[in-house]
Amino acid sequence: MQNFVFHNPTKILFGKGKVSSIGEETAVYGKNVLLVYGSGSIKKNGLYDQVIQSLSSTGAIISEHPGVQSNPILSHVQAGIQLAREKQCEVVCAVGGGSVIDEAKAICAGTTVQHDVWKFFTGKKSVKNPLPLTTVLTLAASGSEMNSGMVITNTETSQKFGFANKHLFPKTSILDPTVTCSVPADYTAYGAVDAIAHVLEFYFTSLDPYTPVQDRLMEGLVMNGMESCDRVLNKLDDYHARADLMWTATLALNGLTCAGLGKVGFPMHMIEHSLSAFYDVPHGAGLSAVIPGWLRFHADLGPARFAQFAERVFDIREGSVETKAEQGIKGLTAWFEKVGSPTSLTALGIPQADFPRIAENGMALAKVWRMKDYNEQKIEKILQECI
Amino acid sequence: MQNFVFHNPTKILFGKGKVSSIGEETAVYGKNVLLVYGSGSIKKNGLYDQVIQSLSSTGAIISEHPGVQSNPILSHVQAGIQLAREKQCEVVCAVGGGSVIDEAKAICAGTTVQHDVWKFFTGKKSVKNPLPLTTVLTLAASGSEMNSGMVITNTETSQKFGFANKHLFPKTSILDPTVTCSVPADYTAYGAVDAIAHVLEFYFTSLDPYTPVQDRLMEGLVMNGMESCDRVLNKLDDYHARADLMWTATLALNGLTCAGLGKVGFPMHMIEHSLSAFYDVPHGAGLSAVIPGWLRFHADLGPARFAQFAERVFDIREGSVETKAEQGIKGLTAWFEKVGSPTSLTALGIPQADFPRIAENGMALAKVWRMKDYNEQKIEKILQECI
Repeated sequence: MQNFVFHNPTKILFGKGKVSSIGEETAVYGKNVLLVYGSGSIKKNGLYDQVIQSLSSTGAIISEHPGVQSNPILSHVQAGIQLAREKQCEVVCAVGGGSVIDEAKAICAGTTVQHDVWKFFTGKKSVKNPLPLTTVLTLAASGSEMNSGMVITNTETSQKFGFANKHLFPKTSILDPTVTCSVPADYTAYGAVDAIAHVLEFYFTSLDPYTPVQDRLMEGLVMNGMESCDRVLNKLDDYHARADLMWTATLALNGLTCAGLGKVGFPMHMIEHSLSAFYDVPHGAGLSAVIPGWLRFHADLGPARFAQFAERVFDIREGSVETKAEQGIKGLTAWFEKVGSPTSLTALGIPQADFPRIAENGMALAKVWRMKDYNEQKIEKILQECI
Repeated sequence: MQNFVFHNPTKILFGKGKVSSIGEETAVYGKNVLLVYGSGSIKKNGLYDQVIQSLSSTGAIISEHPGVQSNPILSHVQAGIQLAREKQCEVVCAVGGGSVIDEAKAICAGTTVQHDVWKFFTGKKSVKNPLPLTTVLTLAASGSEMNSGMVITNTETSQKFGFANKHLFPKTSILDPTVTCSVPADYTAYGAVDAIAHVLEFYFTSLDPYTPVQDRLMEGLVMNGMESCDRVLNKLDDYHARADLMWTATLALNGLTCAGLGKVGFPMHMIEHSLSAFYDVPHGAGLSAVIPGWLRFHADLGPARFAQFAERVFDIREGSVETKAEQGIKGLTAWFEKVGSPTSLTALGIPQADFPRIAENGMALAKVWRMKDYNEQKIEKILQECI
């Protein structure tokens, strides 16, 4: 086990009826609130009204910054920062999925500094004193509600970059599973894929051979990510299944699974980010198209670890280490297929002719993320595995 | 899944060489430090010197409160409170295992109020503004380093009582596994038993039938608690095994496993507390003497849950639900025996003639902990199962 610091101060309010606490939780940090949300689906399902009512009941002065896209873009972040400054907002409240929370974090970081917010993403500046953030989560997927990271796309440079900073944990996040009951099957599955992918990144990129307790936690989260998603897809408004998937996704990327693993990477996300920078594919769909190929490409390097994964997650007990490794990848791929998430670039409609520019784009992010074992040639080879 | 609040703000610094950070972490909260520790083993292994050096380097004024017993006692807590007041301590630094950290929490709570600290334990008063606490952990066992609970024995009334309060999470806890390498085999095993017992309490007392992700986490922690302990006992100074056991014990009682389970109880601890209130047996040894009997007594009530435990933790795949449940309890008992922790009251040398007074004592705690499904008769029946 490697040395680590674990410090996750986010307060989680989980369960039915918790949305009404958002006003009280936000008022702790100030009266002038920037309310960040997406395309307006929260107005259709009544969540917007609930949030406004709760915020207003504490006397909050609300400035609204709607229109966050999935794969949120830099120019919209910059507009939010401008608004937060004009209105002298003291706190940001995000109501949405990972995209909305990610954009809200970037606004929190950018509002209190003179330089452009993108400098945080390119590693040229470090966050010190952001606005505080509260959130109401609407999608089980990214884990952004209980971590300090975010991803934003710069459309001018076609760069989908991310960073994390310890000052950007949300102060409070409200997770009411009923809010997610209206998410359709496809986006529910993409969300589960995203959560599982977060675990896989850590599980397969840690170079520390001695992480038994983390392994058990990660294997449990992958198993339960699949099982809870299956139950949701069987009945979209199954409260308990939604709750189970929601908390699983949060735990999948709240710092717990990677504590002690040493340096880990996000190579599957790195490649997926390049896909969605060009094609605007749903994040989870892009991930499931990349994961099987990435795993096949790497299985040779550490078959024992892949075999352990196969044994524990897919109960594969027969065969050589190599056979088990292969069966584990097949098991995961079959599950992606079962829940309707694409398992190849071909299925996503991405032409091989584009691989060089995807690899080039990926390398830009690999450099920012300091993934020194990647180069364009290697990324192209992985992309070939994903056909 | 039941509604829950999860908010664990403790900062963990984990790994080799981290002890030298205790000064910096403590200085954040003040210059006047009350240093709490036990019988002086930290002076033999050099830890005391390291801590004093680190605290002194920040200019701290240190008042020492040594002599905390395992099963810490109220009168010693009260002495610590008096000292903290006299010296106008602004922060408490605990260096030790669960007993030392527990006593330090009680001192933190009691120093800032006028009434006697025992009123917190009997539920007559609630903690609001305690002194801040930092810790250096020396034993993988109680989880006190990352939770808000504590247990203290009132020797005048023979009551071993505990409570938790959200203001009593340590601010920072330092977990350096090398510090635990000198713990002898027996106390290492008792510590592992304690950690596993914390998980079992939640696993078997939750009445919510729908806690899949928590089940996976708890099963993983039990499996890894046993596996890591086995590796440590095989080689007492195996750093990685010590690290694995240490982090497992912390995760076993940091609020994560019980979040969403609804009301859970500590019936095995309740009974064990009565044992160690009378006999001063090591906490873990008392627990392993009680757990198999408690499980046998309750297996009839929820065989499906017991069977799931047997299947997943002990890989028992054959037989009826009842048979599996029985095999799971046997597997756990066999593991206790393997690591040298007693598995019956007889093995602890506790006479049956004492069962009525143990049951009576247990009921006093059951009332404070609001365990309404217990009475003296039931406790005596469970004790009979533990022979």
